[in-house]
Amino acid sequence: MTEQAQHVPPDVLSPTERTRHRRLREQGSDRRADLDAVLRDGFLCHLGVVVDGTPMVVPTVYGATADTLYFHGSVASRSLAASPRAAVCLTVTHVDGLVLARSVFEHGINYRSAMVYGVPRLVTDPEEKLAGLRCLTEHVTPGQWDYVRGPSRKELAATALLALELTEASVKIRTGPPDDGDGPDAALGLWAGTLPLHQHWGALEPDPALPEGIEPPHHLAARARQPLGRP
Amino acid sequence: MTEQAQHVPPDVLSPTERTRHRRLREQGSDRRADLDAVLRDGFLCHLGVVVDGTPMVVPTVYGATADTLYFHGSVASRSLAASPRAAVCLTVTHVDGLVLARSVFEHGINYRSAMVYGVPRLVTDPEEKLAGLRCLTEHVTPGQWDYVRGPSRKELAATALLALELTEASVKIRTGPPDDGDGPDAALGLWAGTLPLHQHWGALEPDPALPEGIEPPHHLAARARQPLGRP
Repeated sequence: MTEQAQHVPPDVLSPTERTRHRRLREQGSDRRADLDAVLRDGFLCHLGVVVDGTPMVVPTVYGATADTLYFHGSVASRSLAASPRAAVCLTVTHVDGLVLARSVFEHGINYRSAMVYGVPRLVTDPEEKLAGLRCLTEHVTPGQWDYVRGPSRKELAATALLALELTEASVKIRTGPPDDGDGPDAALGLWAGTLPLHQHWGALEPDPALPEGIEPPHHLAARARQPLGRP
Repeated sequence: MTEQAQHVPPDVLSPTERTRHRRLREQGSDRRADLDAVLRDGFLCHLGVVVDGTPMVVPTVYGATADTLYFHGSVASRSLAASPRAAVCLTVTHVDGLVLARSVFEHGINYRSAMVYGVPRLVTDPEEKLAGLRCLTEHVTPGQWDYVRGPSRKELAATALLALELTEASVKIRTGPPDDGDGPDAALGLWAGTLPLHQHWGALEPDPALPEGIEPPHHLAARARQPLGRP
């Protein structure tokens, strides 16, 4: 077995007490591929940290390798200052639509979400820090890292990069029509179904400060054409 | 002064130690109208709770009156069981696009987000519980509460409704082009600007179990036509 082979993540996520799906068992997934797909289809997560004993949920961008999630922020940020060496929960959610049932109770959301738990590590190794920031930038906007100016030493010092291993995660997915199509409420004669929600990129908007004649690079035009948030 | 007038929320959110905007001061808003707009433009939040000392961030739907946020879930849910009488942070985020600067460091996201802090109250009064569930349902899908079957006594008992007062909140908004258009990196001659991200409803999809001849009610067709997630 090569060393590289040891880094291939397992196909099935190990259930722990807090990732075991208690309710709505049909919505839980322990397939590693489902976790990867949820992370691949988004770039914004909600990072939960405990600050002075109370929870704080901060939206932030992320990037992911096969086994590590990277997120970053200012070294002055309170939420990031709280997260190394302390437990976090990092949640990525895609809303795919409304589930419109025949009763209020059966209403819901079609969604895909991943909750990743762990204690993040502050990345201090300069090589990993650059690689992690590259991973993050390329996850949000592929091709951009090599196009723009890279971080200076001062900028790197002002940026805290955190790494969270993808070892404990809970994935939940709901798709399809409401669940009451074969129940007693079907006799009510009400319309039921779903209202899909889509995301799409608009057209690139040049900075008003941009001199004329500078065209967007191909990778940005490609990003703008890419469909988003759908499996 | 009438009793009703006392319930009009103040125009300016009271800054506390954790809602005071430390960094990126230009992005913080203490305008009550900005908080209301962020809450109005979404229906999904990320609820942060502390369970056994570690954070948990759960996506869930919400509804809001002038002074209260309502969210709900199964009485069996661990995240909801942890939240009454304990502090939560409820975050609503709209991603409006990518900020594509001339350096990696200046990249960012155009977004609007609200973080609401507080200790939620479990709603036990039957009248408030019905009103809160109605508020929530109508926030997600206006017109649906009166169209579908309301909750039975058994369903109400299985639903935990929580109320969070809108008294402590932090609103952050970023709009516009990158910040480096007048800096030294402007001389690099790179394209810079923004890539807007939009959300829109698709076409209503009838439940395959629906008998022929049942048309969607007007309020659902109206919801499908409504623009989403934009100020």
